Amino acid sequence: MERIAWLNGAYQPLEQVRISPLDRGFLFADGVYEVTAVLDGRLVDSAAHLDRLKRSADALGLSLPLALGDVEAVERELVARNRLDQGTIYLQLTRGAGPDRDFWPDPSLAPTLFLYTQAKDLLGNPAATTGVEVVTARDLRWARRDIKSVALLAQVMAKQAAHDAHAFEAWLVEDGFVTEGASSSALIVTREGAIVTRPNGHAILPGCTCKAVLAIAERDGVAVQERLFTVGEALAAQEAILTSASNFVLPIVAIDGHPIGSGVPGPVAARLRALYIEAARG
Amino acid sequence: MERIAWLNGAYQPLEQVRISPLDRGFLFADGVYEVTAVLDGRLVDSAAHLDRLKRSADALGLSLPLALGDVEAVERELVARNRLDQGTIYLQLTRGAGPDRDFWPDPSLAPTLFLYTQAKDLLGNPAATTGVEVVTARDLRWARRDIKSVALLAQVMAKQAAHDAHAFEAWLVEDGFVTEGASSSALIVTREGAIVTRPNGHAILPGCTCKAVLAIAERDGVAVQERLFTVGEALAAQEAILTSASNFVLPIVAIDGHPIGSGVPGPVAARLRALYIEAARG
Repeated sequence: MERIAWLNGAYQPLEQVRISPLDRGFLFADGVYEVTAVLDGRLVDSAAHLDRLKRSADALGLSLPLALGDVEAVERELVARNRLDQGTIYLQLTRGAGPDRDFWPDPSLAPTLFLYTQAKDLLGNPAATTGVEVVTARDLRWARRDIKSVALLAQVMAKQAAHDAHAFEAWLVEDGFVTEGASSSALIVTREGAIVTRPNGHAILPGCTCKAVLAIAERDGVAVQERLFTVGEALAAQEAILTSASNFVLPIVAIDGHPIGSGVPGPVAARLRALYIEAARG
Repeated sequence: MERIAWLNGAYQPLEQVRISPLDRGFLFADGVYEVTAVLDGRLVDSAAHLDRLKRSADALGLSLPLALGDVEAVERELVARNRLDQGTIYLQLTRGAGPDRDFWPDPSLAPTLFLYTQAKDLLGNPAATTGVEVVTARDLRWARRDIKSVALLAQVMAKQAAHDAHAFEAWLVEDGFVTEGASSSALIVTREGAIVTRPNGHAILPGCTCKAVLAIAERDGVAVQERLFTVGEALAAQEAILTSASNFVLPIVAIDGHPIGSGVPGPVAARLRALYIEAARG
């Protein structure tokens, strides 16, 4: 089936969507993005993603050409036009294209807003039962990781390192502490059964899925500690877990080749994944 | 006159050049670039820019679709087709567009190579006689600034800060030391007449113009010290100077509103600019 995307007000076949190479998203990574899961044809955690989109745009002085409610309406329409049952919606907002390349972000430019959908079997993800492996990599990123910008080159390099090691994800490490995954939040479960994850701040992106999962965990009676943790603590943990919009909750069975816990998916990850999916479908 | 650009093998009007929003340059800032000056219709420091392009591409595992000599041939042809006497050539290489958004940099993708020209009166730049002001800003950038990547969002933010302060450029500061300008190299001239600039490494981009200017200075009998310098040293300097491909050599007359030296363009900057232009035209 031909995929329908949306660019600056027009629905059109994804294959035909084109932008100018003078778009500041292309020239300067001067843009932000969001990835929202779709389950049963419905948006998951949509309010959180729209809030974060607004927050990222505001941090850069980017203006959204649509009200958030209208963005969501476009997302729903894309789900309908693409008959999307499970998958993701990708949204990218940039400062737009000028007549020439100029570092200074001219506020009079018309922003570029692009959305498209991607089908993916989110519920049947085999990684949920097999677990995934991660490798650690030095966190090379800039100082404002709380902004979900498209300046993702350091993450691409980390994903390359993960791929080279036949791992699913890279956990980024700074001063001995895990910040987060290249495209996911990083959590561990201590021997005492508490979930530990880094507190929000400039060092990490505030994860929408992570936030929802932590709330679910607390309601389920699990202690949540938002604090820094080292690679050593992760290696000694009972479980390690990653969360992201497109992966929900996944158990991590090895870090840098060292098995975590008993080296098989653990019960906390499985329960949180089940509860998260239940809430998303409810 | 209609401007002619080059994209993936085809010369075409700049206004008509289009790329896919799935290009990894747009989605991930997964690309590198160069800006080369054109003077009297000839490329300035071309070998240095091509060397750096290759170095940046290699650092990211990006493959150039053309041999460097063929890249230069395209640049010369663009100069001819655009009848460019003075200005710049912009070149951007990205990892290309995949069928979908995927962090992992699939090596089978065909890279995107885009070049276009911009006319600018480089010799008659009024800033060469008036001097420019700079402001300092925290260096927010990532850990591999030696790669000339398009992940330039931190630089855009610094340029915004400079613009807000009615300054021409931002000097980026890390741990009290100046790294470099947002889009230029940073140099000072001490009270003893020595030029000081930060040594190359991961913390800064190796400047092609800066390298040429330092060689000219040494031949002219000026001492060059490649070492870190603080904002305080810059404020106390006899002169402050910026170099870049599109600005050659410019005198800085104030930093954060404080006059440098006597607050007017100094003789070292003027002489280095003259010698650089002489060499470029020679």
